[in-house]
Amino acid sequence: MQTVNPYEVKGELDYDKLISDFGLRPMMKETTERFEKLAKGSHYAMRRGLYFAERDLNWLMDQYEKHNKFYIYTGIAPSGGMTIAQTMQFQMAKWLQDRFDAEVLIMIPDEEKFLVKRNPAFTLENGHNLAMEDALDIAALGFDSKKTQIFLDTEYAKTLYKQAVRVSKYVTYSIIKDAFGFGNDTNIGALFYTSFQAVPAFLKSVQAEKNIPCLIPMGVDQDVHFRVARNAISKLGYYKPASLVSKFMPGLSMNPKMSASDPNDTIYLSDDEATVVKKVNKAITGQQDTAELQKKYGGNPDKCAVCQYYRYMFEPDDKKLNAIFEGEKKGTLLAGEHKKDLAMRINTFLKEHRAMKKKLEGKLESFMIRD
Amino acid sequence: MQTVNPYEVKGELDYDKLISDFGLRPMMKETTERFEKLAKGSHYAMRRGLYFAERDLNWLMDQYEKHNKFYIYTGIAPSGGMTIAQTMQFQMAKWLQDRFDAEVLIMIPDEEKFLVKRNPAFTLENGHNLAMEDALDIAALGFDSKKTQIFLDTEYAKTLYKQAVRVSKYVTYSIIKDAFGFGNDTNIGALFYTSFQAVPAFLKSVQAEKNIPCLIPMGVDQDVHFRVARNAISKLGYYKPASLVSKFMPGLSMNPKMSASDPNDTIYLSDDEATVVKKVNKAITGQQDTAELQKKYGGNPDKCAVCQYYRYMFEPDDKKLNAIFEGEKKGTLLAGEHKKDLAMRINTFLKEHRAMKKKLEGKLESFMIRD
Repeated sequence: MQTVNPYEVKGELDYDKLISDFGLRPMMKETTERFEKLAKGSHYAMRRGLYFAERDLNWLMDQYEKHNKFYIYTGIAPSGGMTIAQTMQFQMAKWLQDRFDAEVLIMIPDEEKFLVKRNPAFTLENGHNLAMEDALDIAALGFDSKKTQIFLDTEYAKTLYKQAVRVSKYVTYSIIKDAFGFGNDTNIGALFYTSFQAVPAFLKSVQAEKNIPCLIPMGVDQDVHFRVARNAISKLGYYKPASLVSKFMPGLSMNPKMSASDPNDTIYLSDDEATVVKKVNKAITGQQDTAELQKKYGGNPDKCAVCQYYRYMFEPDDKKLNAIFEGEKKGTLLAGEHKKDLAMRINTFLKEHRAMKKKLEGKLESFMIRD
Repeated sequence: MQTVNPYEVKGELDYDKLISDFGLRPMMKETTERFEKLAKGSHYAMRRGLYFAERDLNWLMDQYEKHNKFYIYTGIAPSGGMTIAQTMQFQMAKWLQDRFDAEVLIMIPDEEKFLVKRNPAFTLENGHNLAMEDALDIAALGFDSKKTQIFLDTEYAKTLYKQAVRVSKYVTYSIIKDAFGFGNDTNIGALFYTSFQAVPAFLKSVQAEKNIPCLIPMGVDQDVHFRVARNAISKLGYYKPASLVSKFMPGLSMNPKMSASDPNDTIYLSDDEATVVKKVNKAITGQQDTAELQKKYGGNPDKCAVCQYYRYMFEPDDKKLNAIFEGEKKGTLLAGEHKKDLAMRINTFLKEHRAMKKKLEGKLESFMIRD
C-alpha cells in the first residue's frame, strides 16, 4: 500500500501504479520529442523520465501550435527553509519560461501548513514569514520579473476567494475525503483549501476574459489537487490545466521523498559550505562497505543518494551522468571522491543562488502581486 | 422534532426547547431592565420577549459599565429582495447604535446563498448584485454612516480570509456536520463558510489590537454559527461575542418563519402600495369565519398574522398593542378594518424607506468598506 497526497507520502513508491491509480498519462517518448521540438531544446529531467507522467500535454502543444500560448503555474507551501529538492519545479518552470517565453504564476499558500500541520506552535504568522523567504528564494532562481508573478494567499485573497468559492461549489466533502485522507477530525479550512490551490490554474483566463491554456509542473503528490480541480474548472467553462508530473527527488538518506523537516535528509538553500560537505559525507551511497569491496563488486546507483543527486539536479549532461553511474556500478568510483565532487557542485549552485538573492535585495517587490 | 439552523427551519417551533438545546440564556426580566437602564430607553422587541434569549449580555453590560464599549455586528445573506422581517435585526442594530453610540459592522455574505442553494441558476454574480441592493436597503434604515461599515464578503475577502483561516483551524468537520445538517454531499465552500461569518465578531479587536466587546442581534437560526465560533474565537484569545437572540417574525400566512422565497407569505421592501394592500388582505387572521361569529366568539391573536405584525414591528406602543389584542380576542375588532390599518402602517414605513433610499442615492459608498 502506498499513500501519495500532499499531506502524506507513505509506503514503497510504485510510479507505474500511481499512473494507473491517478489516471495519469505516462510520459511517452513521442510526447517528449514533440515537446523538445517546440521548446527548441531538451531538459534533462524530461529526457530522464524524472517527469514520468503528464496530463493533456499533447493538447497543450496543439494549442501552442495554433498560437494559443500557455502560462505556467507552480508553487510551494512554506513549511521551513526551502530545500534543494523543492527547487525542482521552479527550475523546470524557469526553463519553460525561457523556452516558451511564458508567463509564470507562483502561488505561495502561506496558510496551508498552518491549516494542515498538527503542530500548534506553527502559526499563520510563521507561514507568512516563511512565505516571504520562499518568495525571495524562488525569484533568485532566475525568473524574469516582467513575466513572473508571485503571490501569498493571504495577500491575494480578495482575488482568490471569489474564484475559490466558484470551484468549491463543485467539490463535495465526499470527493475530498478519500482523495486527501481527510476525516471527521479535519478542520474546515483544510477541507476548503484545495479550492484555493485550484484558482491559479484558470485565473489568467478569468482576468483575460478568454481561455488561456495553463501548464503545471508538479510533484506527483500534488496531482490530487488537480484531479479534483480539473473537473470543477471545466464545469466553470475554463480549460483544464495540463501538467508535467515528477517523481520525488530522494533524500540524502534515500528517503523516497526528501523530507523538508529532517535536516539530515535534506539540504536547505540556506546551508553553508561546511554544512553541505558534512551532510553529503553522511549521505547513503549504493557502494560496498569498504573501498576494497567496492572495487571488487561495484555498487548500485539506484540505491545511491549521491548518484541520484547527480541525476535529479547536478549533472545535466547525460554522458557524464552515465559515466558516474557506470563508475559506481563497476567500482571504479569511490565514495570519498564521489561525495566531494557532489558537495562542490551543490556549493557552486548555492553560492550562485546566494549571489542572486543579494542582487535581488530590495527588488523582490517587482515579482509580487497583492490585492 | 424541530430543525433550526441557517439553512433549514422545520417543525413546530418550541423556543423553550431551543433555549435548552442551544444552551442559550432565557431573557430575564432583570437583564432586560438592566439593559434598558444602560440604554436609557426601552425597545418594544425586548420588552415583548421577541428577543427571547441571549448570550453573555450581563458580561457585556459589566464591560460597558467599565467603559469598555461594545460594537454591534449583524448581517444578511442576500437571496432575493429584502423582506420586512429581515429588517428586524437591522432595526434593532440601529436602535442599539443610537442608544449606545455604537459602531455597527454589517456583513453581507454575497457568496453564502450561492454555496448553499441547490438552484444552479443562482450565480455568484446574482449574489453580488442582490448584496448591493441589500446594502442600500440596510443603509436606508437610518444608520449613521460615520459609525456604520457595510461590506460584501467577496470585496473584503483579503481581510476576512486571513482571520477565517484562524477560526477554521478550531472547527472540524465533525463539529459542523450535525450542527448545520451537513453531509457527504455538502460542498467544501459551504463547509468552510461559517469561518467567514465568525470573523466580524472579533475583527474590530484584531484591527484595534485590543479586545473590544461585540454584541450580535440575530434570529435564532443563526445561533449555530456563533455556538461554533465562540469556542474558536475564545481560543484565539478574543472575547466571545454576546448576542440578542430573536424569535422569527411569522409570515402573512402564519408560516412560523416568514419565507423570503414565498411572495405571498412575505412583504418585500420593494412592494408598492397596492401590492401591500393585496397581500395584507390575504393574510391569515385569528378571527372567526364571519363578522357575526367573530363578534360573538372573538378570535385568537396568537394565530393572527395581522396581530403578530403589530407585535413584531408596527405597533411599538404596548398599550395600543394590548388594545388591538383585546379587540381581536373580544371580537370588537373586525378583520377588514384591522387589515386596512396594518396595510397603511406598512405602507407608511415603506414610503419612508423609499424616500430614505432616494436620499442616499450616490451616497451608499460612505457606508461601504472594501479591501
